[in-house]
Amino acid sequence: RVNADRLWDSLMDMAKIGPGIAGGNNRQTLTDADAEGRRLFQTWCDDAGLSMGVDTMGNMFMTRAGTDPDALPVYVGSHLDTQPTGGKYDGVLGVLAGLEVVRSLNDLGIRTKHPIVVTNWTNEEGARFAPAMLASGVFAGIHTQDYAYARKDPEGKTFGEELKRIGWVGDEEVGARKMHAYFEYHIEQGPILEAEDKQIGVVTHCQGLWWLEFTLTGREAHTGSTPMNLRVNAGLAMARILEMVQTVAMENQPGAVGGVGQVFFSPNSRNVLPGKVVFTVDIRSPDQAKLDGMRARIEAEAPRICEALGVGCSVEAVGHFDPVTFDPTLVASVRKAAEDLGYSHMNIISGAGHDACWAAKVAPATMIMCPCVGGLSHNEAEEISKEWAAAGADVLLHAVIETAGI
Amino acid sequence: RVNADRLWDSLMDMAKIGPGIAGGNNRQTLTDADAEGRRLFQTWCDDAGLSMGVDTMGNMFMTRAGTDPDALPVYVGSHLDTQPTGGKYDGVLGVLAGLEVVRSLNDLGIRTKHPIVVTNWTNEEGARFAPAMLASGVFAGIHTQDYAYARKDPEGKTFGEELKRIGWVGDEEVGARKMHAYFEYHIEQGPILEAEDKQIGVVTHCQGLWWLEFTLTGREAHTGSTPMNLRVNAGLAMARILEMVQTVAMENQPGAVGGVGQVFFSPNSRNVLPGKVVFTVDIRSPDQAKLDGMRARIEAEAPRICEALGVGCSVEAVGHFDPVTFDPTLVASVRKAAEDLGYSHMNIISGAGHDACWAAKVAPATMIMCPCVGGLSHNEAEEISKEWAAAGADVLLHAVIETAGI
Ligand SMILES: NC(=O)NCCC(=O)O
Ligand SMILES: NC(=O)NCCC(=O)O
Repeated sequence: RVNADRLWDSLMDMAKIGPGIAGGNNRQTLTDADAEGRRLFQTWCDDAGLSMGVDTMGNMFMTRAGTDPDALPVYVGSHLDTQPTGGKYDGVLGVLAGLEVVRSLNDLGIRTKHPIVVTNWTNEEGARFAPAMLASGVFAGIHTQDYAYARKDPEGKTFGEELKRIGWVGDEEVGARKMHAYFEYHIEQGPILEAEDKQIGVVTHCQGLWWLEFTLTGREAHTGSTPMNLRVNAGLAMARILEMVQTVAMENQPGAVGGVGQVFFSPNSRNVLPGKVVFTVDIRSPDQAKLDGMRARIEAEAPRICEALGVGCSVEAVGHFDPVTFDPTLVASVRKAAEDLGYSHMNIISGAGHDACWAAKVAPATMIMCPCVGGLSHNEAEEISKEWAAAGADVLLHAVIETAGI
Repeated sequence: RVNADRLWDSLMDMAKIGPGIAGGNNRQTLTDADAEGRRLFQTWCDDAGLSMGVDTMGNMFMTRAGTDPDALPVYVGSHLDTQPTGGKYDGVLGVLAGLEVVRSLNDLGIRTKHPIVVTNWTNEEGARFAPAMLASGVFAGIHTQDYAYARKDPEGKTFGEELKRIGWVGDEEVGARKMHAYFEYHIEQGPILEAEDKQIGVVTHCQGLWWLEFTLTGREAHTGSTPMNLRVNAGLAMARILEMVQTVAMENQPGAVGGVGQVFFSPNSRNVLPGKVVFTVDIRSPDQAKLDGMRARIEAEAPRICEALGVGCSVEAVGHFDPVTFDPTLVASVRKAAEDLGYSHMNIISGAGHDACWAAKVAPATMIMCPCVGGLSHNEAEEISKEWAAAGADVLLHAVIETAGI
């Protein structure tokens, strides 16, 4: 078993970097806080005897050598970046549990046949630069590096500029590494494991996603002196599209979600009807047909809603992945590890996207989940217990040992 | 008649300060651009022989002496501040037409019995600091100066700090001045005069307004892994309130408007359901019963909408004025001036709020309007013709001469 206290202490130490305003973290990707978090992680990896490689997307690969010089490494990882008002565990747990696996192997004097590489993927959250899982996406050949470098944050700064600014452009070609297997341990970010009183989620699938960024064009006009019948009201069109997305998601129950987290009004002045409203619809389902059907319906209905108001409507897909099925052999190794360790477990479908979804495109991959209080995530109040954290790390340790061989 | 070319040239010169991005202006109150605009206006007033007084709200009073030492001044004015994406005429026309009246009187060698004071009111727009017409409101005793100084812009800077920073805190006590009469000339900002092909709007009333700032409290949660039935979706509640405001306004036709110009999502991240949504509803009517009825209904229905979603709802009135009836004698003097000059005219109700609405609380007051193209205002594309501008200034000249006496 891993050292539960050491894992927890590392989580708490990392959480000191980029503190939030309500007990969580704001360590968004490619900020100074991100750079500081990376340095702390690097120090810990140095102390554990790992050697570092960094690729041109800033992905960090910390290697513990294996005994077989020809064996491909087993990768374990997740991300250290957070939402603007994020929790202390989302992503961080997966990286530091990977480190804890290595520390435990060191303590136990166990050497594996395959090397083990603890990985920190850049910009998993997609909060600053859409889409999410950007750097693992480039690694897996889903996006080009040029596309990624050109992504802009709301202030107009590009990913490429900011990666350079914080000093984490590495020299490795992205995606050149080959993986024997990829494991990602993550908090569930949903309510199921806690409700079912299970310690371990054996993740069999991940639901698919579309991020549809709408740009509605109205006519800026005075809210007081512009009669109702002369308005070209992009804000009202946005409101109707939000309601329609809700309806579409509800009609696809169970197994679908839809909502909007980001809205920009322009010029955003109390007495000016907005000339432009930009917002992103987030729809997801583990069922490909539902996912595609929801997208088609939203893209068909939104222009009709806008047309009735004279509002211009354009839509751009700024994030997408299809539902993922994880590797059956690795899934079985996770289930077996939970059973061997005597942890309660159940199969689960990931509701959130993860770097594992892209890793699965280029290697056998799977995930392990632990519960989180109230299913709450993307919230500074995100919480887990030390015992929950350690149980999943134990499972990760066992599954990694089985897969990496001794 | 006034010098149409000189008036137009001054409008174009002022528009060079704080240029917008699409041909209009961004000269928001208490910015460096506002300070620069004030200095240019001051220079012009110096050249026209006016003496300056500035009060502790930064209101500028430029006086042309009268022949009767005991006579109270006739005030003419409006505002030089603009929306973030504002036009070149909204407010500016009223101030510079006031200056043009004085310049014309100088040219003609006419002295009036009552002094004439050309006025620039601070923060009419309310775009940076709600409410609108803030400084004329303090002048009229509607707000205290402490209230005004504490108003914050979206960045958290206060009105008081910013007024000091740009160096326009004067030494006059606000509201100490007494007015014989107040005239404000303004573009209509609506479509009626153009549609009716009239050169002059004789403004008899101004419709009343409520700005209702809603703060909705949801629960920040992951857009992917949070099932639909566990969401506390403040964004959806906002959408439903927008639709409800539209319905309420439509049911109060004719003679009412309602809409939303400003919306802030927090944390405003694509994959986070908003924990907080703040937005401002703007409702108006010239009919007191309709105005009050709309407010009551919105304040009753919004909490019900929120409750159904589990969302917290609080509302604060951040702007308000009741419908205004302008002074019949001054209204008649405007109508007579238009007739004497041979300009087509009609009675009109102001759809927008103006400093004249607060001046009317402490003095006989009225307004003059000219058409604007397509009724468009609070838009950089706001446009008027030189002839339209001059016609209203001619009417202002005649009405001021009649009221100030010679
Ligand atoms: N795990 C996680 O929150 N990833 C961000 C991408 C997503 O929105 O699912
Ligand atoms: N005239 C004008 O646009 N005033 C701003 C206050 C309002 O919204 O009516």
